[in-house]
Amino acid sequence: MTEYLYQRLASALRQQIEQGVWQAGDRLPSIRALSSDHRMAKISVQKALHTLEASGLIEARARSGYFVSPRAVRAGGSQTGDTDSPRTVNLPQLFHEIMARSAAFDLCPGAQLGSPAPHLLRLNRHLGRALRHQPGRKAIYYGDPDGLPTLREQIGARYRSRGCPLDPAEIAITGGCQNSLFLALMACCQPGDTVAVESPAFYGVLQLLQQLGLKVVEIPACPVRGVRAEELEAAVRRWQVKVCVLTPSYATPTGATIPVEEQRKLVALTRRYPLTLVEDDIYGDLGFHLQAEPLKRFDTLGKVILCGSFSKSLSRDLRLGWISGGQFHRRIVQLKLINQLSVSQATQEGLTSFLAEGHYKRHLASVRRQLMNQRDQLVDAITEEWSGPYAHTLPEGGLSLWLELSPAVDTKAAYQALLAHNIVITPGALFTTSSRFDHCLRLSFCQPVTGVRRQAIARIASVLGHQSP
Amino acid sequence: MTEYLYQRLASALRQQIEQGVWQAGDRLPSIRALSSDHRMAKISVQKALHTLEASGLIEARARSGYFVSPRAVRAGGSQTGDTDSPRTVNLPQLFHEIMARSAAFDLCPGAQLGSPAPHLLRLNRHLGRALRHQPGRKAIYYGDPDGLPTLREQIGARYRSRGCPLDPAEIAITGGCQNSLFLALMACCQPGDTVAVESPAFYGVLQLLQQLGLKVVEIPACPVRGVRAEELEAAVRRWQVKVCVLTPSYATPTGATIPVEEQRKLVALTRRYPLTLVEDDIYGDLGFHLQAEPLKRFDTLGKVILCGSFSKSLSRDLRLGWISGGQFHRRIVQLKLINQLSVSQATQEGLTSFLAEGHYKRHLASVRRQLMNQRDQLVDAITEEWSGPYAHTLPEGGLSLWLELSPAVDTKAAYQALLAHNIVITPGALFTTSSRFDHCLRLSFCQPVTGVRRQAIARIASVLGHQSP
Repeated sequence: MTEYLYQRLASALRQQIEQGVWQAGDRLPSIRALSSDHRMAKISVQKALHTLEASGLIEARARSGYFVSPRAVRAGGSQTGDTDSPRTVNLPQLFHEIMARSAAFDLCPGAQLGSPAPHLLRLNRHLGRALRHQPGRKAIYYGDPDGLPTLREQIGARYRSRGCPLDPAEIAITGGCQNSLFLALMACCQPGDTVAVESPAFYGVLQLLQQLGLKVVEIPACPVRGVRAEELEAAVRRWQVKVCVLTPSYATPTGATIPVEEQRKLVALTRRYPLTLVEDDIYGDLGFHLQAEPLKRFDTLGKVILCGSFSKSLSRDLRLGWISGGQFHRRIVQLKLINQLSVSQATQEGLTSFLAEGHYKRHLASVRRQLMNQRDQLVDAITEEWSGPYAHTLPEGGLSLWLELSPAVDTKAAYQALLAHNIVITPGALFTTSSRFDHCLRLSFCQPVTGVRRQAIARIASVLGHQSP
Repeated sequence: MTEYLYQRLASALRQQIEQGVWQAGDRLPSIRALSSDHRMAKISVQKALHTLEASGLIEARARSGYFVSPRAVRAGGSQTGDTDSPRTVNLPQLFHEIMARSAAFDLCPGAQLGSPAPHLLRLNRHLGRALRHQPGRKAIYYGDPDGLPTLREQIGARYRSRGCPLDPAEIAITGGCQNSLFLALMACCQPGDTVAVESPAFYGVLQLLQQLGLKVVEIPACPVRGVRAEELEAAVRRWQVKVCVLTPSYATPTGATIPVEEQRKLVALTRRYPLTLVEDDIYGDLGFHLQAEPLKRFDTLGKVILCGSFSKSLSRDLRLGWISGGQFHRRIVQLKLINQLSVSQATQEGLTSFLAEGHYKRHLASVRRQLMNQRDQLVDAITEEWSGPYAHTLPEGGLSLWLELSPAVDTKAAYQALLAHNIVITPGALFTTSSRFDHCLRLSFCQPVTGVRRQAIARIASVLGHQSP
């Protein structure tokens, strides 16, 4: 992890704020004091403070210094209650509806999009070239069930650069990250088995558990720092938890990132218990400041199954993901074979040359900047349009933030009401099998929060009864 | 089904030969006699005889007339024994190997291919155009989980033209025919359930049963006329068979086609028993003379699940298929959603315009001609190079024929020996969980049987001990 000094300071201050050392409204030490305490140049201190300010965690007040913003959700500040006992999953139609509405990551799916990013045009050129290369051979032979070796090398190289060396032989290409999660759970579970998830959890995983006949245990997760190893261990001891699905970096819906020390402890549990971790790394490339390192790097026994794709960082229409299945890898490749034989060779080839020429890396730099700006636009819009008791997370990456509203608010009802205005929100009910997030809401900053999307934020506040006077 | 007079006569004669009315070596009635008996012009009778001759079923002898060829496998002529009781599926590594070797349909996977067919270049232009259309939108939104409505209309129209009207709302787009079979079995079975298959069966289905923890009952199938309803009914009465997977037209490995009356009886079983039929229609478009009509057209209760794709008829690299799930359709779409979210929109769009402009239909006409010629090349090569007791099927469509050799022959051993010569055969052992086809062999006519592939036929004969002196 290449971390600049200013980033280290920003992280330290963020942690202190999250842990309540500095509380909402508190004044932070002066630049001079921080510079002297941390033995770093004032310019670096300033950069750290600007980072925290950009993320909405602190506010500058003219001639008074920096103050902790009142809206930031603090670590541990949101108690989601005890872990419920395992239950079969029986989700309402809403879950299917929201996945079918691929719009779940866009507030206003009907609204105009900007002109396509240059990287998409370039990606298309690579895909088009691959289509034209040996079309006769591609038409007659299915691709390698493990996936194109050169693509697996490229993906292995990316993980190496993220501190997690993976042999291409340990990587298989799949039909997307959801497909990888499906294969992972099929490979290591039998119907009736118990699977732990972070709570709130990704709705795609909850639906998977339902369709595969698996029981769920929801582990309360901090909206900032995710699941703690201690809580997972308690669940594993109490119930026969076979698998835990985790999104260590920039998880949906909260944007939570599990701290490195906690990651290490989570993986250590796989050495003490018959437990497999399924790591959903789909947001791993979308850190605004830091390059997230996957859980998988601590895995010495092959008990972490890593799943990822380029869908959130590059294009959802590639329909291509990957999996590194540890002990389960051979079984997973066999399942993949009978599930769908192989993945389009043209897509794999086109993507490989796009990656090999460095376009993805360049694209990531710009998409991270863009997402951070859009997150700030979203926070600004909320700050201006909303009132009443609410708090939101300030993710350092990913695509969405999490809002906790007054307990009386019903975001599921608001979802229905807002559909009439062509606005799609993702109510908290989608991220649990319980009712504990009925007053919560995920908002995405996947699109610029300007124009109709800016107006939508005001409309949502009004439907929820949280509008500014 | 548009059937010409000469085709009707050809079918009648074929049936008589298959039923043993005319036996190997018998002389057929003269052209004059047939013309008078069937009240049709001599030219039509000649055309019928040429058709049968082209398919190797009869031979012309100068100034003597037409004789039944000694090599044609007759219906019911091949007894595969009784139906075994249900068993769990435990396949050797060979099954995985042969699927991984996408070469299973090409004798000589290393050999040169001809220049790509013009339709592939055209298909690529359609796919390329679709890639360039709204790339930004495609990158941000997942496609409709049911699949692109216009593509579903095109597929519905094709089935209408095959005598099986399907509403686009009853069709979902999947990641290929194997993916459709997977979804079908997941939707209607629980682990431990018993599934009937035709014997010999497609190895992809046997592997599916293994991975999904399903038990198999193999129903002996005639290599020419497939499974009989009576035999399936006996199995259903004796064991709790929940599902039967059938390939009614040009099944792999034999090329068998279930006659219309038998199809009707098979579907009627679903009205009397708690039985679902899964129809594998992947070869349905590859009839040389007739347009095959699917089983599904007799389905009034939604108990036939139709699965298909363009992989065998157009390109394996599309990675796109379809399913029409009857009673199970909604469950299947939900499974598909959690299995892989959606299928590439660019591929769906490109394929839609290719179909809508009539290119697929034109392509089919030429691919059917080509496959028939290649089948004849293969039969010629076998006739010239092979000796000893053997018999082969003469499929009227599809991609492969089936050889039965001397009982002492072990085609699995031959498979290993031939790999050293870069020749890939598909031994009979791949099409059963028993050993009853160890002396059988599938040979594909997917590629022209010229050059090295022609030499491979001689090499196979020699390795099997069936070479001509």
